[in-house]
Amino acid sequence: MIHGLYDVIHRRRDVRAEFTGEPVAPEVLDRILTAAHAAPSVGLSQPWDFVLIRSEPVRKAFHEHVRTERDVFAATLSGAAAERFARIKIDGVLEAGLSIVVTYDPARGGPAVLGRHAIADAGLYSVCLAIQNLWLAATAEDLGVGWVSFYREDFLQELLGIPSGIRPVAWLCVGPVSHLEQVPDLERHGWRQRRPVTDAIHEDRWAG
Amino acid sequence: MIHGLYDVIHRRRDVRAEFTGEPVAPEVLDRILTAAHAAPSVGLSQPWDFVLIRSEPVRKAFHEHVRTERDVFAATLSGAAAERFARIKIDGVLEAGLSIVVTYDPARGGPAVLGRHAIADAGLYSVCLAIQNLWLAATAEDLGVGWVSFYREDFLQELLGIPSGIRPVAWLCVGPVSHLEQVPDLERHGWRQRRPVTDAIHEDRWAG
Repeated sequence: MIHGLYDVIHRRRDVRAEFTGEPVAPEVLDRILTAAHAAPSVGLSQPWDFVLIRSEPVRKAFHEHVRTERDVFAATLSGAAAERFARIKIDGVLEAGLSIVVTYDPARGGPAVLGRHAIADAGLYSVCLAIQNLWLAATAEDLGVGWVSFYREDFLQELLGIPSGIRPVAWLCVGPVSHLEQVPDLERHGWRQRRPVTDAIHEDRWAG
Repeated sequence: MIHGLYDVIHRRRDVRAEFTGEPVAPEVLDRILTAAHAAPSVGLSQPWDFVLIRSEPVRKAFHEHVRTERDVFAATLSGAAAERFARIKIDGVLEAGLSIVVTYDPARGGPAVLGRHAIADAGLYSVCLAIQNLWLAATAEDLGVGWVSFYREDFLQELLGIPSGIRPVAWLCVGPVSHLEQVPDLERHGWRQRRPVTDAIHEDRWAG
């Protein structure tokens, strides 16, 4: 069992190019969403929602927006970074048949959310824990997940009719894949290397 | 393998009262931190760090602070909520021999972090994904994890000498446990019930 979890954790990738376009079986989707929903949340507030997007017009509209934001980011780069970025595919919105938008409702469980009075962002953290459960469950089911973050929150809110006050946290492309890359895309393309874990560890106090 | 992951996801609890005080074996801690470090991150920025806290004076100082913040929250409650909260243990800082503080460095991988130009919080999200990997790995290793959020970030920053600009995201108590509860503490104590997952699902557009 331990081997199973670690295997999934290390095999998981952020997928852009490998979606086959095949559908996700309903019972698989159920298990994945149930896994996401089993995440811990501050004060048991469970502040997440999942918008399942299969509509092609909606995915196309989002993809157009992502292209625009890609250009915005590209304009901040020059030289080698600009060249590297030009080779990197940043989304599989059109290729994956399903996307899942995960949202955060700060009012859920309020007004007195146990454990959130001192840390306003604690509810947002809970939503991210649910996203990682979803991502690992999908990986265990041999699906790929790609988190697209080239978008403006207000655009997505309007596109999906998300009420004001509720915040979109992630657009996740989800679906069967031809394979999962062994090395993260950004590392393969020379954008950035992985840091040794030992560099991230401090003992009793911040060091370095 | 699939069963293994789902088993861990659903067995995972937020632990307060069940720590035995026994140490975490070094090779187990290595696997857990390596799992956390394998999380996805925006632009492969890997913006997390882990401060391992075994010092008793540091844990005692933090625990005192948590008690004070517990009182701050309790003062906002009245009636049945106040009575329910009085029965709930909110931390195992003294009982667990190890705590891990996870931090976020927004400057890591900057200035042009791929995928963060439009969403400032994307780096913070990455740190939470690492926390969930850590939590699941610890659960698979038969350890308990308890996320303590009754603290002020500036207090913790000063206590651990964390540089300004780097943000503490979580204080996690980690250690062997007598058992994991089957039902979350807050549900057992009648603080809040779990929501049916079907209530969290929307199709193509926000509904309801």
